[in-house]
Amino acid sequence: MSDQQERIQDIAHLGRVELLTPKPRESLWYFRDVLGMEVVHTQGQSVYLRGYGDYAAATVKLTEAKQPGVGCISWRAASAQALERRADAIGATGLGLGWSEGDFGRGRAYRFRDPDGHLMEVYFDEQKYVPPPELRSTLKNLPQKYTGRGVGVRRIDHLALLAKDVAANRGFVQEKLGFQLREQVRFNHGATEIGSWLSPSPVHHSVAYVMDIKGGSGRLHHFSLWVDNREDVLRAASVITEAGVFIEACPSMHNNSQGFYLYTYEPGGNRVEVYSGSYLVFAPDWEPVIWNEEERGTGVYWGGALPESFINYATPDIEAATAPKQNVPVFDPR
Amino acid sequence: MSDQQERIQDIAHLGRVELLTPKPRESLWYFRDVLGMEVVHTQGQSVYLRGYGDYAAATVKLTEAKQPGVGCISWRAASAQALERRADAIGATGLGLGWSEGDFGRGRAYRFRDPDGHLMEVYFDEQKYVPPPELRSTLKNLPQKYTGRGVGVRRIDHLALLAKDVAANRGFVQEKLGFQLREQVRFNHGATEIGSWLSPSPVHHSVAYVMDIKGGSGRLHHFSLWVDNREDVLRAASVITEAGVFIEACPSMHNNSQGFYLYTYEPGGNRVEVYSGSYLVFAPDWEPVIWNEEERGTGVYWGGALPESFINYATPDIEAATAPKQNVPVFDPR
Amino acid sequence: MSDQQERIQDIAHLGRVELLTPKPRESLWYFRDVLGMEVVHTQGQSVYLRGYGDYAAATVKLTEAKQPGVGCISWRAASAQALERRADAIGATGLGLGWSEGDFGRGRAYRFRDPDGHLMEVYFDEQKYVPPPELRSTLKNLPQKYTGRGVGVRRIDHLALLAKDVAANRGFVQEKLGFQLREQVRFNHGATEIGSWLSPSPVHHSVAYVMDIKGGSGRLHHFSLWVDNREDVLRAASVITEAGVFIEACPSMHNNSQGFYLYTYEPGGNRVEVYSGSYLVFAPDWEPVIWNEEERGTGVYWGGALPESFINYATPDIEAATAPKQNVPVFDPR
Amino acid sequence: MSDQQERIQDIAHLGRVELLTPKPRESLWYFRDVLGMEVVHTQGQSVYLRGYGDYAAATVKLTEAKQPGVGCISWRAASAQALERRADAIGATGLGLGWSEGDFGRGRAYRFRDPDGHLMEVYFDEQKYVPPPELRSTLKNLPQKYTGRGVGVRRIDHLALLAKDVAANRGFVQEKLGFQLREQVRFNHGATEIGSWLSPSPVHHSVAYVMDIKGGSGRLHHFSLWVDNREDVLRAASVITEAGVFIEACPSMHNNSQGFYLYTYEPGGNRVEVYSGSYLVFAPDWEPVIWNEEERGTGVYWGGALPESFINYATPDIEAATAPKQNVPVFDPR
Repeated sequence: MSDQQERIQDIAHLGRVELLTPKPRESLWYFRDVLGMEVVHTQGQSVYLRGYGDYAAATVKLTEAKQPGVGCISWRAASAQALERRADAIGATGLGLGWSEGDFGRGRAYRFRDPDGHLMEVYFDEQKYVPPPELRSTLKNLPQKYTGRGVGVRRIDHLALLAKDVAANRGFVQEKLGFQLREQVRFNHGATEIGSWLSPSPVHHSVAYVMDIKGGSGRLHHFSLWVDNREDVLRAASVITEAGVFIEACPSMHNNSQGFYLYTYEPGGNRVEVYSGSYLVFAPDWEPVIWNEEERGTGVYWGGALPESFINYATPDIEAATAPKQNVPVFDPR
Repeated sequence: MSDQQERIQDIAHLGRVELLTPKPRESLWYFRDVLGMEVVHTQGQSVYLRGYGDYAAATVKLTEAKQPGVGCISWRAASAQALERRADAIGATGLGLGWSEGDFGRGRAYRFRDPDGHLMEVYFDEQKYVPPPELRSTLKNLPQKYTGRGVGVRRIDHLALLAKDVAANRGFVQEKLGFQLREQVRFNHGATEIGSWLSPSPVHHSVAYVMDIKGGSGRLHHFSLWVDNREDVLRAASVITEAGVFIEACPSMHNNSQGFYLYTYEPGGNRVEVYSGSYLVFAPDWEPVIWNEEERGTGVYWGGALPESFINYATPDIEAATAPKQNVPVFDPR
Repeated sequence: MSDQQERIQDIAHLGRVELLTPKPRESLWYFRDVLGMEVVHTQGQSVYLRGYGDYAAATVKLTEAKQPGVGCISWRAASAQALERRADAIGATGLGLGWSEGDFGRGRAYRFRDPDGHLMEVYFDEQKYVPPPELRSTLKNLPQKYTGRGVGVRRIDHLALLAKDVAANRGFVQEKLGFQLREQVRFNHGATEIGSWLSPSPVHHSVAYVMDIKGGSGRLHHFSLWVDNREDVLRAASVITEAGVFIEACPSMHNNSQGFYLYTYEPGGNRVEVYSGSYLVFAPDWEPVIWNEEERGTGVYWGGALPESFINYATPDIEAATAPKQNVPVFDPR
Repeated sequence: MSDQQERIQDIAHLGRVELLTPKPRESLWYFRDVLGMEVVHTQGQSVYLRGYGDYAAATVKLTEAKQPGVGCISWRAASAQALERRADAIGATGLGLGWSEGDFGRGRAYRFRDPDGHLMEVYFDEQKYVPPPELRSTLKNLPQKYTGRGVGVRRIDHLALLAKDVAANRGFVQEKLGFQLREQVRFNHGATEIGSWLSPSPVHHSVAYVMDIKGGSGRLHHFSLWVDNREDVLRAASVITEAGVFIEACPSMHNNSQGFYLYTYEPGGNRVEVYSGSYLVFAPDWEPVIWNEEERGTGVYWGGALPESFINYATPDIEAATAPKQNVPVFDPR
């Protein structure tokens, strides 16, 4: 019998992402009419939406704010007991903020900040989506009809967050949330951890931490939504283009994660990815794949390069800190 | 805090499937040249193969035998401790067969039979695939080059097994292996459990148990291999047709599981599915979707019907038991 | 130099298809909301529509009628001179009906009936589509925005017509319209011409004539609209299913024509195909591909079979003529 | 009746492209093993190949030469009479070179040079491909089995040629070969004809002429081969990457032509495109779509840009003429 410690399996999946937007009406149009999500609830300055394949009532929360960025990131626990265990473990780190009553469609949640300051919570009780008659699918195992409107994203997939100290944040979600490290980009002979991709489930990554070259904190690189086939990403490119929305990076394939991507900016300014492909990781003893400067290249599998803005822009957008950063090589966060 | 029992998370994934074939040479041609798998090892009457995306050294074992059917079905445990726990739990049921030394590329395994008699094992130690230079991929996170030969299946996906008593086998893998029940077909106002689909991971199902209408035991309905896009299944149909291999059911979409399928018979007689689509299940409290006679229909989402053979044929092929089965309605195992 | 006669190249393409429907409102819903066509004009009992890629103002005309079926089939001439030449040649056969003033968006047309009685016309002057601002595409070479609504058919493709005497009608469009014969189904050692597929352009077929086994006249087997990729046909199947429209034959691939098909009935009763794939024919001396009973099989390339209704149903639907047809073998019109 | 002149319809399609290569063995590997073409004949310093869907015996001719570039470009006439007419018309321009005996699988051909010096010929007699037993398809209307090897290009599609004087060459193929002008790029308020796309058939373009910014003559920008679906282009990108071949531009969509592209360099140095999508043009009175500097943008529909090399590199590669070109704006030949 091995003495190796067993991985904590207390987090089931990414449950909800709150996006902040200074243009709430335009952002709503983007998520509802261009990406094809459904509005399920409105409360205060927030609108709650869902992808047609999400089992929960709402998985995206759009909240009016002065600046774009990410609000609260919610993780669903694997059980009520798992929620208690995670609250205890996080509380012990001093990063806990305490219990909240629970947002729309959710039971109480334990809130905290990751070391970089991103607001997060863990919850267990979840309201399953019950569609109104006109959104009932002919498929009994599909929570909601595929309406065919716009891109038609199926479900939320993952987040990429910027962090001043990637290792600290990566270690936090590994140790306190039980995420498995999937891939890393390390420069300078491995000394500089540029980015790390992690997940609590076989989905390749549910969160990525990438170095914030401007020295900010709590910033969002992108939020990603899933479609089932690469062809759906290509179709999305035409739908988005015809809608007059800016595409930052056309459909192509990453080397890291093997994800098939398309990056746009929603009108509020946040970078949004329409995503498919990638690969599932089933190995309990997965050895992280580590890329150095040369191997990582431009981040595009087939060649080509992501635009400069992909490295320099995140939300909220900030000026680079006045104190010049130590020599950080150029890289592609993803 | 809930008193609900937490789900056992000791099994990580389906690790290997042994197929028995009376035509070993032709079956090998099918898996290597038509499906595009790689041969990694030969031992006794067995050949070991892999899909280009499988992380393990070998995931399919073809063994010469008098009759087609399924040999040993291997499940990888989530840890060394998890393996011990499962061995103990299974041993306590009286279905255990004891420890084996471990097959090619694997550590020791605990062998057992499910209630219907299918041979299974749980193991933890696994040899990761190290490709020879000519099979090294330009993608650092891909265990092996995509050669482009034949269909090019990426990895093994799932099994559908026949069983005289679906409920007994379904209950066994739920309770002893910790699988989550995903979907069911129940006839006669729910009284007759026709089929159940279960998985230890977010993959929709890793095993299905479907009623053996001929009253056999230990039989295989089909073995399924994954490709990444629906378009790959369409391409597979042409590759398989040009190879002169029989296609039992053309590419189409199931309602149950939402799987996009294509069914062939490998030359040894076993039914093999080329599979994509479906959906991932992340909910820890997933409520099984239950289909009755009318809802289930022909098992095809868009209409149409699976052929009669899909219900009547399995391996090994047997005559129906002489004692007439009580009135079992027609159904589609999947 | 060869003495072989040159092929007449006076017809450019299928220009418009008029469909008759006893349920005009429901048929309009089908073409506009399910297939995603645009309404451009309404006149009397008719509504005119277009696919987003059609260069003409309108390519489908839906006309209220007591029974479903096909109304006038319009072919665009290659030039004004070509129109005159065709009018003269058809007039000389005694099948001409004379000049009409021209329908919406078209100049004058020469009307006639094919030997089986289908109403047709040839015209040259055509009004190009000018989109309103909200339908202007970001692509300068696309006549109209791809709206993403419903299936999103790009353009009309072809028609399959039933005929009591296939050879007579096939010969008529070959000789009087200059169509090239692409494929045929011939039974009884070639003696019985079951179906013929012809085209005036590299498009595989613009019209098919298939034997009317019920002995009717002027009937429609199906009308076909194009989407660019096979994946679009798969997506169409889900859109159509979620709309509650009957799918007669799920997406699959024909052997004859290599077309990738999906057959539905629009609410008025006419069979409509969503179509992609197939192949272009460039050879000026193309030798027709002839299929006999065995080669033709079920008409499905990968195996499987089209449903019985595919052979027995056409519009308008009629009882089989009382005088029993001579032994006509079963076949699949397409 | 219109007095407008009728378009000459004497050329049926692009019949064969001869590519020159200084690395004949490596180029052969590229076309046979990477693109998946079949070798049908070897003669002198040339190898003849075909795509699985080409009806002719051979459509690509690889010829050893000191420098890469395009050799003879063959157009098939619509009839024997059409061949005579074209020979007469070309001969009258003074660009004729006279009759040649006919290359492998072809009858006699009339050779000439376009105004920029590219070698061309027109022929009519053509040998249809008869596959050896192992390459016979299960599809009676497919000239050859789809082997599944490599990319699996179906047929040749088009050529892009550089020219010092685009207008002169464009006018030549319009007037002497009857090609229809489909799209143009014109800069400087329409005064500078940067590129023109033309075709003798509904295929969007069979040839493009684009300004040679280095002032060379007879040079090749790229040669393009067809696959049926956009997904096939994506798959090609992985096949080509795994083969270690350079991809100059990853799969994406042009605005002009709406083509879905992927550009590589074959080992001899010639740029080769794997191509799908685009649109068919059926209108006999098609009005060319003209793009100016802003509209044309980077040539990519969804955004992004083609690399600099796409503008600067062609075969044979030359130094820019010493006399500085008058101010020619940057553009993308395609």
